[in-house]
Amino acid sequence: MVETFLLQKSLPKKSIILHENQISFNATFVLSGCLKAYTIDNNGFEHIIQFAPSDWWVTDMYSFITQKPGNIYIESIEPSSIVQLSRADQLRLFDKIPRFERYFRIITENSLVAFRKRLMDNLSLSAAERYEGFCSRYPTLITKLPQKLVASYIGVTPEFLSKMKAAEKKKRKTDDFLNLG
Amino acid sequence: MVETFLLQKSLPKKSIILHENQISFNATFVLSGCLKAYTIDNNGFEHIIQFAPSDWWVTDMYSFITQKPGNIYIESIEPSSIVQLSRADQLRLFDKIPRFERYFRIITENSLVAFRKRLMDNLSLSAAERYEGFCSRYPTLITKLPQKLVASYIGVTPEFLSKMKAAEKKKRKTDDFLNLG
Repeated sequence: MVETFLLQKSLPKKSIILHENQISFNATFVLSGCLKAYTIDNNGFEHIIQFAPSDWWVTDMYSFITQKPGNIYIESIEPSSIVQLSRADQLRLFDKIPRFERYFRIITENSLVAFRKRLMDNLSLSAAERYEGFCSRYPTLITKLPQKLVASYIGVTPEFLSKMKAAEKKKRKTDDFLNLG
Repeated sequence: MVETFLLQKSLPKKSIILHENQISFNATFVLSGCLKAYTIDNNGFEHIIQFAPSDWWVTDMYSFITQKPGNIYIESIEPSSIVQLSRADQLRLFDKIPRFERYFRIITENSLVAFRKRLMDNLSLSAAERYEGFCSRYPTLITKLPQKLVASYIGVTPEFLSKMKAAEKKKRKTDDFLNLG
């Protein structure tokens, strides 16, 4: 039943499925691969809002629920397979299948928690603490993502991230040495 | 029906209804007055996550949906009247009244949009642009809130906010003068 409303697509790496100023007609569920949602500020800098590895939903929620043009980009960062569900079909399914509305109510509650946590981290944590948070939120991504994307997500330059990781490694080595002693 | 699950309370100014490390058993709807949700970082600084004027819901969503201890404070910033709904009663109502689940699905979608916008603003906008955003998001609050709370929300010191507003005022006066000329 639900499957008939879902449109499956294969994306090569660097496929932009949503541009700034476009309407996000669809919510996207990632079957395999990984997408990123980001904005580009007035100075041309990219700010990553969210990564969506497999089993995650990603959309411009503002644009999706209002069906007005939004201000984010969604792009595959590796070859990916996705399914898409339009807002119109989603609302139709909510009417027909209350359990489906429950599923999205829960998904949305969880997303809200994740965004609020990210906001709180940005307001109150150091870059090193934000990096630790990233590693625990996206354990499968930390090894496979280019460092410049990780740096963009935690809000530092790639150079700063690299220095921070080197310092952390050195500190761990010293700690190990002292434990041995 | 729904009313029987709601508990009404009157709060004097500066009543803390949720502390860090407590479980948020209830979601709170503001009938009158205003509440703030905030964290306190390791250096003792307060970071405001959300204001809740009348007709807004406020809760520690993480703690509310997991029923585990959270890490935010919720406090009245003026005498306020609230109603509270426990998570257990909310889930019961979702089962009994599908329209009620729809209402909260929509509320949660809107909150998600607001938090994501706040995150994007923090990542990519200047302090002056964040201040403008604040004025349009909370038009009723901007005149009645203490300036130090506005400064905390947009992430600057009260002194910086004051200088920024003075510069903005001066710029507007010059613009008006040039328009008259």
